[in-house]
Amino acid sequence: MMAVAEIKIELKKGVTDPEGQNTKKALELLGFKGIRSVRSIKFFEIELESEGDEAVLACKEMCRKLLANPVIQRYSIHLK
Amino acid sequence: MMAVAEIKIELKKGVTDPEGQNTKKALELLGFKGIRSVRSIKFFEIELESEGDEAVLACKEMCRKLLANPVIQRYSIHLK
Repeated sequence: MMAVAEIKIELKKGVTDPEGQNTKKALELLGFKGIRSVRSIKFFEIELESEGDEAVLACKEMCRKLLANPVIQRYSIHLK
Repeated sequence: MMAVAEIKIELKKGVTDPEGQNTKKALELLGFKGIRSVRSIKFFEIELESEGDEAVLACKEMCRKLLANPVIQRYSIHLK
């Protein structure tokens, strides 16, 4: 019994993304054209011994307690 | 005409993932049980004025020139 959870942690809309902005600038300095925006996102792939709803609940708790900052980030969980 | 490219940059198999390992330890210290592994992955969402093959090619170039370190990382590109 096991599950692989993909946790995507991204900035909420309206929150400045300095890493994304600087990556965009760096790409443009390298000569890339036609880039409208770059968003930087954090991703965790967690292998769990639990499954289904239990695994999703554990991942939600992990996001709330450690992985995400609820003031500026939102998270989504997807079981593979 | 535009495309949104999702670029996933992860460590190659066999490369140590200190961020993932420390995240796993921190989660265990918080009381989470049954975690087999944690992998940390970087993700970029890039809005481009190009589309299709042209957009994918541009993203490959971006990974090669800036976003990924080919010695320890591999990347995958997915157009939304």
